[in-house]
Amino acid sequence: MKFGGTSLADMERIRHSARHIRREVDEGNQVAVVVSAMAGTTNQLVKWCQEASPLHDAREYDAVVSTGEQVSAGLMAIVLQDMGITARSFCGWQIPIRTSDIHGAARIQDIRADDLDERLGDNQVCVVTGFQGISSQGRITTLGRGGSDTSAVALAAAVKADRCDIYTDVDGVYTADPRIAPRAQRLERISFEEMLEMASLGAKVLQTRSVELAMAQGVRLAVRSSFADPDAFQDVRDGTNFGVPGTLVCDEDEIVEKQIVSGVTLVKSEAKITIRSVKDRPGVAAAIFGALADEQIVVDMIVQNISDDGRQTDITFTVPDSEYDRAMAAVSNNDSFEYETITGAKGSAKISVIGVGMRSHAGVASSMFKALSEKGINIQLITTSEIKTSVLIEEEYAELAVRALHTYYGLDREEE
Amino acid sequence: MKFGGTSLADMERIRHSARHIRREVDEGNQVAVVVSAMAGTTNQLVKWCQEASPLHDAREYDAVVSTGEQVSAGLMAIVLQDMGITARSFCGWQIPIRTSDIHGAARIQDIRADDLDERLGDNQVCVVTGFQGISSQGRITTLGRGGSDTSAVALAAAVKADRCDIYTDVDGVYTADPRIAPRAQRLERISFEEMLEMASLGAKVLQTRSVELAMAQGVRLAVRSSFADPDAFQDVRDGTNFGVPGTLVCDEDEIVEKQIVSGVTLVKSEAKITIRSVKDRPGVAAAIFGALADEQIVVDMIVQNISDDGRQTDITFTVPDSEYDRAMAAVSNNDSFEYETITGAKGSAKISVIGVGMRSHAGVASSMFKALSEKGINIQLITTSEIKTSVLIEEEYAELAVRALHTYYGLDREEE
Repeated sequence: MKFGGTSLADMERIRHSARHIRREVDEGNQVAVVVSAMAGTTNQLVKWCQEASPLHDAREYDAVVSTGEQVSAGLMAIVLQDMGITARSFCGWQIPIRTSDIHGAARIQDIRADDLDERLGDNQVCVVTGFQGISSQGRITTLGRGGSDTSAVALAAAVKADRCDIYTDVDGVYTADPRIAPRAQRLERISFEEMLEMASLGAKVLQTRSVELAMAQGVRLAVRSSFADPDAFQDVRDGTNFGVPGTLVCDEDEIVEKQIVSGVTLVKSEAKITIRSVKDRPGVAAAIFGALADEQIVVDMIVQNISDDGRQTDITFTVPDSEYDRAMAAVSNNDSFEYETITGAKGSAKISVIGVGMRSHAGVASSMFKALSEKGINIQLITTSEIKTSVLIEEEYAELAVRALHTYYGLDREEE
Repeated sequence: MKFGGTSLADMERIRHSARHIRREVDEGNQVAVVVSAMAGTTNQLVKWCQEASPLHDAREYDAVVSTGEQVSAGLMAIVLQDMGITARSFCGWQIPIRTSDIHGAARIQDIRADDLDERLGDNQVCVVTGFQGISSQGRITTLGRGGSDTSAVALAAAVKADRCDIYTDVDGVYTADPRIAPRAQRLERISFEEMLEMASLGAKVLQTRSVELAMAQGVRLAVRSSFADPDAFQDVRDGTNFGVPGTLVCDEDEIVEKQIVSGVTLVKSEAKITIRSVKDRPGVAAAIFGALADEQIVVDMIVQNISDDGRQTDITFTVPDSEYDRAMAAVSNNDSFEYETITGAKGSAKISVIGVGMRSHAGVASSMFKALSEKGINIQLITTSEIKTSVLIEEEYAELAVRALHTYYGLDREEE
């Protein structure tokens, strides 16, 4: 069970989250808990490091910011004990959770689970600090922001957990953002692959890296709300329901009724830049996107069309609106490739439909284009992957497009 | 060099304290630093633990409250690096500083200094978390409030430091409280024994335990102000002056001109309780003071007079005013000893004169009584130790008595 910062924001919320833990213990489960820092704590610690020096030693930064989880782990252990549950806290270095030496962005290499296994077998609750570990030099490392999800998945794999429950401030993964598509539904199950596309496309429920790790290690993930009443659901339990409503992220094989499309996502404020009649030679794409990477600009969609004569091509890519000016400058002031014109504009939106069912169902892309055309929405760019089709459209049509596709693919919740 | 919470209260104060470190480094000294938590931090952490549960696990309490020093050590290392000084932070467990398993009140058992020695020899500044260590179980322990002084002394002994400088918000140890005796002077030197009496009698500059340890390990201590200008004093250095004003706490042998009396201390709000005609038999004192100890009441002065017939005695003791009612109840409701009457009153003050010179100079006590009698001050109780004489007087005469004794023993600073 992993609890994020908003689920541990103050003593009342810590106590509420502890009741979720108690419910699992009462049902006879062995429970390891991973905690983030109390909401706001990490920001304060990061701010202090920046005040101390804008160019601070990442090893010292890690020593400072890792304290937030140590506090919440200790407090959670105390609250659990107060409820009569045997519990103790562990720092990353005490287990130890061994990581690489890349401070501030370390990767978990190995978790020694002997002690945890013994305690779990003895029905003790082990509360572990998320987001951190120890390097081969014996120094505290952190995994980068949001790394607690990754800690939880790695720990679940190490103790061979049946499931890794990520408790957060939403009660699951939805077919679309309910603020845009009011008839969006919570998904009972979603495959790792779909979740990865969702996570990187704007559904900010799980950290992408934690989903990758869960998929690689075969750890079933559940996204659940810590804000729900911990006791109200304790009797409702079958294969798909876990006590409180939530979404299970699992292997495709575990999903019996596969939807063709599982969700519709939206990323707004995209800027598109088109370089026309680029002289086509090996390495030209590397030259363009290398120039952008040098400026630390993250490029989203990339589309390259073949031109008529095969000697020159048009390349279009998108960046966040906020990076538009810097991106234009990076590709314009560049003599490592030849081109005719560069044009661009801010104010587009990327709409994606995601679903493992696309693999076996032809025509998903074409039906997407049809649905949009019925609403009079013009498509600027198209990219596809195995389980996803994305289009770039004018931003003012974004919400309309999400609702239209949500309805078109039969995702709307039935009216009550 | 040890810095307390007020010397690290915010980034500006951390930077100011770091300039004191830089001065020592610039003068070619090898420097290890011990830090407390930023002022206020530990109180917040303790409060959270109490909110989590009034009866919290001391091991979890230690995990939580020890984070304050980890934050300040990391920030100090960053600030020092920013000044161009090679520095790194160490948690107690990283060195390791091994302690007993008594969580919340652990005692340092052993400090492994190999790595520190190597780094110090390499002119690196090692910034170590005060107040904490690691138990034989591999869990974080804390030494109790104010334990950072003790950490500093233990570390100084482990690295065989020439001196352990305790930087605080006062610039040394004074012959009396300057708010009461305006002509009180800062002592250039004071013996460990005198400092111990001072520390336990109300001069709240150094933790008693740290002075005991310094005496046992032969570590010379200096009490100095972190608020002083770090650069103003760098050229003033001889045997007694350390760059900034301060007081050296050292072996008696190192003090050439021994004062008969080094200081006058005051503890107000003392209540006295007298048990008259206690039937004198072996174990009667144990019965009385055992009853008080059972109630966790700390007794200060104890005086027992021999009575005329040798079969009954009068016993008087003092407790803080705030404990008076509980103390009266504890000795009154007790049938483990026989007595005639119990009387008592709040509102006394204890005045003590302290000085190693008393050992070789007769008449210090009698001259004290004479000085007080000259001011018409009545003495209620007298106790003496080898280097200290204490009297209990009526509280309203307290300040007058301190000033009278301060003048009488020639401690007054000359008028400027």
